[in-house]
Amino acid sequence: MSFPIDFYFDFASPYGYLASHQIDRIAKKHKRAVTWRPIMLGVAFRVTGAQPATTVPLRGDYVRMDVPRYARLLGLPFTLPANFPMMALAPSRAFYWLNDRDPAQAKALAKGIFDAYYGEGRDMSRVEAVAEVAAGVGVDPDVLIAAAQDQAIKDKLKDETEKAIALGVFGSPFVVVDGEQFWGADRLWQVDDWLKSGGW
Amino acid sequence: MSFPIDFYFDFASPYGYLASHQIDRIAKKHKRAVTWRPIMLGVAFRVTGAQPATTVPLRGDYVRMDVPRYARLLGLPFTLPANFPMMALAPSRAFYWLNDRDPAQAKALAKGIFDAYYGEGRDMSRVEAVAEVAAGVGVDPDVLIAAAQDQAIKDKLKDETEKAIALGVFGSPFVVVDGEQFWGADRLWQVDDWLKSGGW
Repeated sequence: MSFPIDFYFDFASPYGYLASHQIDRIAKKHKRAVTWRPIMLGVAFRVTGAQPATTVPLRGDYVRMDVPRYARLLGLPFTLPANFPMMALAPSRAFYWLNDRDPAQAKALAKGIFDAYYGEGRDMSRVEAVAEVAAGVGVDPDVLIAAAQDQAIKDKLKDETEKAIALGVFGSPFVVVDGEQFWGADRLWQVDDWLKSGGW
Repeated sequence: MSFPIDFYFDFASPYGYLASHQIDRIAKKHKRAVTWRPIMLGVAFRVTGAQPATTVPLRGDYVRMDVPRYARLLGLPFTLPANFPMMALAPSRAFYWLNDRDPAQAKALAKGIFDAYYGEGRDMSRVEAVAEVAAGVGVDPDVLIAAAQDQAIKDKLKDETEKAIALGVFGSPFVVVDGEQFWGADRLWQVDDWLKSGGW
């Protein structure tokens, strides 16, 4: 009966990391599955004219304070990576390649990438680093490295990003529940309430 | 012992309206007072380069959906005013004039302005409309109209706005608890948690 919840995010988004540790737990409470959908947020930013929050005067200072504080609330490690904000092409492509084969494994890879990047500050923009994390969830690293270069996978990420923007996705995280949109890691309480109450 | 919570907002901000119906209730749970501080958010936007959210592609559509939905969750009436987004000089000046005389009455006026503007869609940019709401909370409308033109009150609003920006305020609502900053009507649950737990 119930459709999965769509969880859009950019691997480079710190608020995506914070949401990645909450969304499946919230969905499970309401017996829902979650489809993880990495996108390249920079493409949406070209539509909205947005700048990465950390580069904006005043707001940048707020975000640099807010993300570690929110991570503390959740009991999560947080390290601002030296290469922040990274271009997340490699992890996003690897995700979609694996997702066609084993969505559960792909989700484990995505969680591992977020944790390596924002939990430990490791550079996850290189496909070799992604392959290392993938090895930890049972994926042959050499196969993954080759697959992530595949034109079909590059196109897949491009398509997924364009489809997301066409639906109205402009930020990370961005959650869609039965067509209802919720933007931001600070809105997950509304996702929870919406699922509980059946809407307002 | 405990200092009041600072509640910064722009009367033109729909999320300020949504927060105006929550902040005192949250503070009261934790035996805190709230100091209301209207500012001219456009001045902060000149620093951050932000545009009013409703004018941004994709994000504008989201906000037009999100604000009425959030109002329904809170059980509040919401009407997008014909003159949205208004320049909130008149209500903000009237507030600071009254606040010097009677902060409780000034808060009642502020709530009345928000409710007239976003609850009923009445144009609150004109000082005569503000004076009408003020009459309902026991303020002589003619005295208020004259006072709001006073150079000292104009300067006061300017000063308050500049002081807020110097502290890092760049959005509405923006709540400061013992120096700790929380931006957004979707973050009030964190204000509540912070007050409850004494920080993370």
